[in-house]
Amino acid sequence: MVRVLVIGQGMVGTIFAVGLERVKKGEIEPYGIPLEPLKPRIRISEIEIVGSIDVDVNKVGKTVYDVAKGIYGFKEVPETLKNVRVYPGLELGYVKDIFNVKSLDEQYSYSRTLDQMYETIVDLKPDVIVDVSTTQFAQPFGDPERLKKAVENGRDVVPSQVYAYLAMKYSDEVKPVAYVNCIPAPLANDNAFITLAEEMGGLILGDDGATGATPLTADILEHLKERNRRVLGIAQLNIGGNTDFLALTNERRNKAKEFTKSSIVEDILGYNAPHYIKPTGFLESLGDKKFVALHIEYVSFNGARDELIVNMRINDSPALAGYIVDLVRLSKLALDRGYSGTIYEINAFFMKKPGPPSARNVAKIVAYYNLFNFLNKINALETPETVSFAPGLHQQPQVFLPQEQRKV
Amino acid sequence: MVRVLVIGQGMVGTIFAVGLERVKKGEIEPYGIPLEPLKPRIRISEIEIVGSIDVDVNKVGKTVYDVAKGIYGFKEVPETLKNVRVYPGLELGYVKDIFNVKSLDEQYSYSRTLDQMYETIVDLKPDVIVDVSTTQFAQPFGDPERLKKAVENGRDVVPSQVYAYLAMKYSDEVKPVAYVNCIPAPLANDNAFITLAEEMGGLILGDDGATGATPLTADILEHLKERNRRVLGIAQLNIGGNTDFLALTNERRNKAKEFTKSSIVEDILGYNAPHYIKPTGFLESLGDKKFVALHIEYVSFNGARDELIVNMRINDSPALAGYIVDLVRLSKLALDRGYSGTIYEINAFFMKKPGPPSARNVAKIVAYYNLFNFLNKINALETPETVSFAPGLHQQPQVFLPQEQRKV
Amino acid sequence: MVRVLVIGQGMVGTIFAVGLERVKKGEIEPYGIPLEPLKPRIRISEIEIVGSIDVDVNKVGKTVYDVAKGIYGFKEVPETLKNVRVYPGLELGYVKDIFNVKSLDEQYSYSRTLDQMYETIVDLKPDVIVDVSTTQFAQPFGDPERLKKAVENGRDVVPSQVYAYLAMKYSDEVKPVAYVNCIPAPLANDNAFITLAEEMGGLILGDDGATGATPLTADILEHLKERNRRVLGIAQLNIGGNTDFLALTNERRNKAKEFTKSSIVEDILGYNAPHYIKPTGFLESLGDKKFVALHIEYVSFNGARDELIVNMRINDSPALAGYIVDLVRLSKLALDRGYSGTIYEINAFFMKKPGPPSARNVAKIVAYYNLFNFLNKINALETPETVSFAPGLHQQPQVFLPQEQRKV
Amino acid sequence: MVRVLVIGQGMVGTIFAVGLERVKKGEIEPYGIPLEPLKPRIRISEIEIVGSIDVDVNKVGKTVYDVAKGIYGFKEVPETLKNVRVYPGLELGYVKDIFNVKSLDEQYSYSRTLDQMYETIVDLKPDVIVDVSTTQFAQPFGDPERLKKAVENGRDVVPSQVYAYLAMKYSDEVKPVAYVNCIPAPLANDNAFITLAEEMGGLILGDDGATGATPLTADILEHLKERNRRVLGIAQLNIGGNTDFLALTNERRNKAKEFTKSSIVEDILGYNAPHYIKPTGFLESLGDKKFVALHIEYVSFNGARDELIVNMRINDSPALAGYIVDLVRLSKLALDRGYSGTIYEINAFFMKKPGPPSARNVAKIVAYYNLFNFLNKINALETPETVSFAPGLHQQPQVFLPQEQRKV
Repeated sequence: MVRVLVIGQGMVGTIFAVGLERVKKGEIEPYGIPLEPLKPRIRISEIEIVGSIDVDVNKVGKTVYDVAKGIYGFKEVPETLKNVRVYPGLELGYVKDIFNVKSLDEQYSYSRTLDQMYETIVDLKPDVIVDVSTTQFAQPFGDPERLKKAVENGRDVVPSQVYAYLAMKYSDEVKPVAYVNCIPAPLANDNAFITLAEEMGGLILGDDGATGATPLTADILEHLKERNRRVLGIAQLNIGGNTDFLALTNERRNKAKEFTKSSIVEDILGYNAPHYIKPTGFLESLGDKKFVALHIEYVSFNGARDELIVNMRINDSPALAGYIVDLVRLSKLALDRGYSGTIYEINAFFMKKPGPPSARNVAKIVAYYNLFNFLNKINALETPETVSFAPGLHQQPQVFLPQEQRKV
Repeated sequence: MVRVLVIGQGMVGTIFAVGLERVKKGEIEPYGIPLEPLKPRIRISEIEIVGSIDVDVNKVGKTVYDVAKGIYGFKEVPETLKNVRVYPGLELGYVKDIFNVKSLDEQYSYSRTLDQMYETIVDLKPDVIVDVSTTQFAQPFGDPERLKKAVENGRDVVPSQVYAYLAMKYSDEVKPVAYVNCIPAPLANDNAFITLAEEMGGLILGDDGATGATPLTADILEHLKERNRRVLGIAQLNIGGNTDFLALTNERRNKAKEFTKSSIVEDILGYNAPHYIKPTGFLESLGDKKFVALHIEYVSFNGARDELIVNMRINDSPALAGYIVDLVRLSKLALDRGYSGTIYEINAFFMKKPGPPSARNVAKIVAYYNLFNFLNKINALETPETVSFAPGLHQQPQVFLPQEQRKV
Repeated sequence: MVRVLVIGQGMVGTIFAVGLERVKKGEIEPYGIPLEPLKPRIRISEIEIVGSIDVDVNKVGKTVYDVAKGIYGFKEVPETLKNVRVYPGLELGYVKDIFNVKSLDEQYSYSRTLDQMYETIVDLKPDVIVDVSTTQFAQPFGDPERLKKAVENGRDVVPSQVYAYLAMKYSDEVKPVAYVNCIPAPLANDNAFITLAEEMGGLILGDDGATGATPLTADILEHLKERNRRVLGIAQLNIGGNTDFLALTNERRNKAKEFTKSSIVEDILGYNAPHYIKPTGFLESLGDKKFVALHIEYVSFNGARDELIVNMRINDSPALAGYIVDLVRLSKLALDRGYSGTIYEINAFFMKKPGPPSARNVAKIVAYYNLFNFLNKINALETPETVSFAPGLHQQPQVFLPQEQRKV
Repeated sequence: MVRVLVIGQGMVGTIFAVGLERVKKGEIEPYGIPLEPLKPRIRISEIEIVGSIDVDVNKVGKTVYDVAKGIYGFKEVPETLKNVRVYPGLELGYVKDIFNVKSLDEQYSYSRTLDQMYETIVDLKPDVIVDVSTTQFAQPFGDPERLKKAVENGRDVVPSQVYAYLAMKYSDEVKPVAYVNCIPAPLANDNAFITLAEEMGGLILGDDGATGATPLTADILEHLKERNRRVLGIAQLNIGGNTDFLALTNERRNKAKEFTKSSIVEDILGYNAPHYIKPTGFLESLGDKKFVALHIEYVSFNGARDELIVNMRINDSPALAGYIVDLVRLSKLALDRGYSGTIYEINAFFMKKPGPPSARNVAKIVAYYNLFNFLNKINALETPETVSFAPGLHQQPQVFLPQEQRKV
């Protein structure tokens, strides 16, 4: 079994819980779980959510079942979620603009808060901690010592940084853990955390789950680059109606998001084409299904100008929730094989701003095949040979190695 | 030098000629020539158009300069094109519904037509023959003998099949030639032609240049497949105003096109998602810049339904013309290295329905890296090591081979 | 009460029945019934469906309740529909390509079929007959005598023409009836029918309900015309997955549709801008919710070129079903006030090709206010003065009459 | 002749000048001038630009010809514009964040600046002053006395308010003038200005020219309202690359724009549907041709949910420039007929936020016919009877009056 602790019982955390249990019961198909067709050596049925942490007064103390039914109004909620409780977490003044808070730091002194939080983690014995809490703007620390001091003082540190720090402590003292960071706070993009993880035998994966328009934009840019089309400009407009978008109306959180989203342009194209890529606004009626408009103009052969417009109406939270199913088991498989620090191959496919900090973005389709090769190398897939992952090439022995040609 | 003979002095053939010469003069950037940043070992300046074949009464006997200026109204036409003449070709009753014809078969008996045509080819001494003539519906022959007989009788054979046959004869008798088929007639998808090419030491590349919406659709489908999203349906609507679209209002030609365009769905997704992918109509006001609308609906995690809409306003002919610059030099590089028959790696990236017939389609981004590896293998790129073709990975020694990870 | 007989128990007829009863029960809001805010003097509660006619072997003999539940899988179906039966109608060889048929003409001789059909109508005593049967291509007769002979012989006559003829006979012999033609067959666009209706004291409204993309296109064209923007071309592509679209894959039916859809261009713009406006294809996965892509390019001031793209994902059948609620009561109000023949004002707003034949299309927004004025004139609205139908003008006494200005 | 003074020699002012002169020379068609087909009694040839005011150091002191050629790079610039000079205007600290300033207030004391400015106006003797200066956020004064004091002190007053005040003074002392306000500053929406205009015999038309996405959105909302479809939400995203969009990255200017753009929703629908309608961002590569994405979701009959997406790639400045040609001559026609204050009928069609303040927005198609009736009433159109402005109705004697029907 893989024991999972979820930080942030919001829409994503809740759909992850509900969807996971429904797939385990066979109620629904495992669509949206990217690597399921490749049969990772940990099956979906082996994943177990052991607890959840939140700071919303309406969620803390309830079960995930209650949250799913009562707050989000889900209809099909497996009974198994009655066993998963929501524990109080850290707020540190970062989300009280969005909802009413019930947190440890509201009740206790900061140092007792840290102890209490650590104890919760130790009690729940997770193998993987998944961070899907509210987006925060934060700066990387760079140096583990600076990070350590900030966490101890509770100064200039956002909750996710504290959680990840405690997770690494737990990795050292209890058992190796993977911290999967699905929000834009720079953890896998902070050498402080990566060094710490290497020392403690844990993993930090991240940052910011690459769902929505950005990964598709990445692949479209790769498509244009491969044809040597000169991109004149990229406008990617996003508007949504969930808490995530509400949170992003705050200037600093928006900055955090812009940072993770914009890195694809120069990394993929090789030049910094003019672009405007960021969350644009909040419109409650859209709910969890955001609206995206993407406009790209480019020059083709002989000076021809083309235009490409993409409109998406997509459910943000389920897309990320499906990724998490894979992230959880890949993390555990890597931990079991002795990996620590961070793993670029996993980050590059699943994250908007893949760590480590020195890494650059690649097109997601490229990242997928890199990930496939990595997983084969560490023997993480059940039957790689028989899986027709690139159907057109089934006659060739190896996907990216040169093939023999008919020669005279 | 690479000597090129163009079949079909339409929009594509003319933009190819004009754009090539302008790039050679340094008048414009080589945008839209896909592999230029990888520096193929034949430079653009080494490509020379030696002649052109057409059956339009307004073009035959003129120079390409006249056609570009007088018929298509181009403003910037290099003087060098005054040296390239348009010779009469074969019509065989296939295009007289679209324009007034002046052809060899209209003047001579069929057998004399064949001789005359062959003589024209021999006189022009091409290394590469590029077929950008009007789309025709044709069936593969399968067997070289059946093909030979059909060509000799002039029965159930479309002009492109006759041209390709004569090209292979020339390959045997004069010098190795590559026949690059950019239209939907099945040549690289016909074992008859591939066998013939192998025997004659020539190359047949094709079929149907993968510009427009189809290659982008292929990459988007790959993107969805890699996330295990279940595609419910794909509607790809195309409308344009050039002769190509006018020709496709004919039912049989439309069938030919539908065949090459639709193969991506099952090949990439692994199941035959419901789809409607074909040229939709002709609207003269759109000119060469067609309008595309693509709608894809799919299921994501926990049963969520998403929708994706792409609208494109794209110049069809320049996109293909840019490809041809590369196809010409890659063909020659392969011929020089002793290749004959067909080359899947080249076809898979550049063509809608890549031959050989047993091959399947892959996503174009996958095909690109396969092609890159193939070209490196045959030493066709000048400086592969220094080219940062996948920018994010420049720190790793090899793109698709497993990398060392930080291990405890 | 208004007694309604429905011809064609397909998706539209079924949603009309289900939605009407649900609105009457107060289960849902009356959204999609255009004039409800203007309070027509017949209330929705006064509309009663008394019977239905179809030729689908799976529907004939059943109740509308059974059809809604069993065939279309509706969940909320009011019990009242258990009282509405589906009677066998006429097929005349026109729909057997789409489904298995059970019809009167299959059982009886043609002349007995006519008698039987007439008897059904007389028995049901409708005030309004609504034709939502499968689209057929037909030619107008022009002359009532030619129409009469064709109906008597059963030659070159489609079912809708026979139904409408019988309806007019019933109007003469039993009581005035309105025949509301929501399909493209030319009835209100045939002087034969209009003359007949005038003589028999009945009404023929039509043709072809203006839902979907066409009425919006009409208003957008008006918007452009009012700014003197020169439209260069219009491409309107439609693809859907219901029986209506399946039927339109037949060339002749498609022609019928193109005819009613295309008339807006010259009628509104005043010149025949190049256009491609027709149903494009069938893709089952889209279901009743079709996908529309509209592209318009135009010239603005100083030669500027602009482009407008509209994509719609819209439920075809409910939109028309909502119109029918109004069409039924407006017909009855007009009959009660002594109108016969056809009524341009009603047709112009609700129909794609408004009759009479001499009439032309106008923008739908213009048609709306014309209709409003007509309804006020015939005292068909309950409280026209208090209805703020054009909110911005509530201070002015009359919408389209000149107002007093502040003058020096 | 109509003497026109332009305030703001930006893109709009320059295209207005260039386009107007080219139309006068017969070089281009008068497309984009809305009412030209209705033949206003002042012909385009009678409009003369007598001067221009700006505060950009690169423009002041030059001719409009120089600005068009040198700064905006227009190719076809009529020589007549060599006679039109750019005079220095007022800056008051409002635009120095965007460009380098050369203004009167930079050289002189505020009171001398006012005198100088007034003198410039008096010297140029305009009949119409058109304000196309940079967008500013401003509050209405309400009371003429407060306005007068603010202008005298130069406190809490933006340049447009000062210009309009001086224009009204000139109207009183020299000759009646119309001030046409095409930017969002509230002039026609300020009772202070309207009262002043009435007293001084001048006209204030405005505010904020209704080009771009907002007027089309208005007509689409009207279209939905007329079908009683319940709008769930409206997202209208705008991104552009001209100075106007650059200016709107400033929070306060953006607010000004949001105010004028959002008023359509409740005014037209009758309820305040959730909406996000505002300029979204700046992307230089888009140039003057902005990109718009509009998403509307609504409920139709029987609870069906539909979605509508509009994407526009439109040239902002020419659209407004074309309007100005009409605004100039309609203003003069109204002045000549003794009108003063403001004229709702003109504002309602041409402006985003039509004054007076008590007025509400209506759909633009409705506003067009109101305007038509108004212009007929004041005898401003040459041949209203023969103009087929609503082509479909050419058989009826009067457009919006009830017609006789065939009655039994």
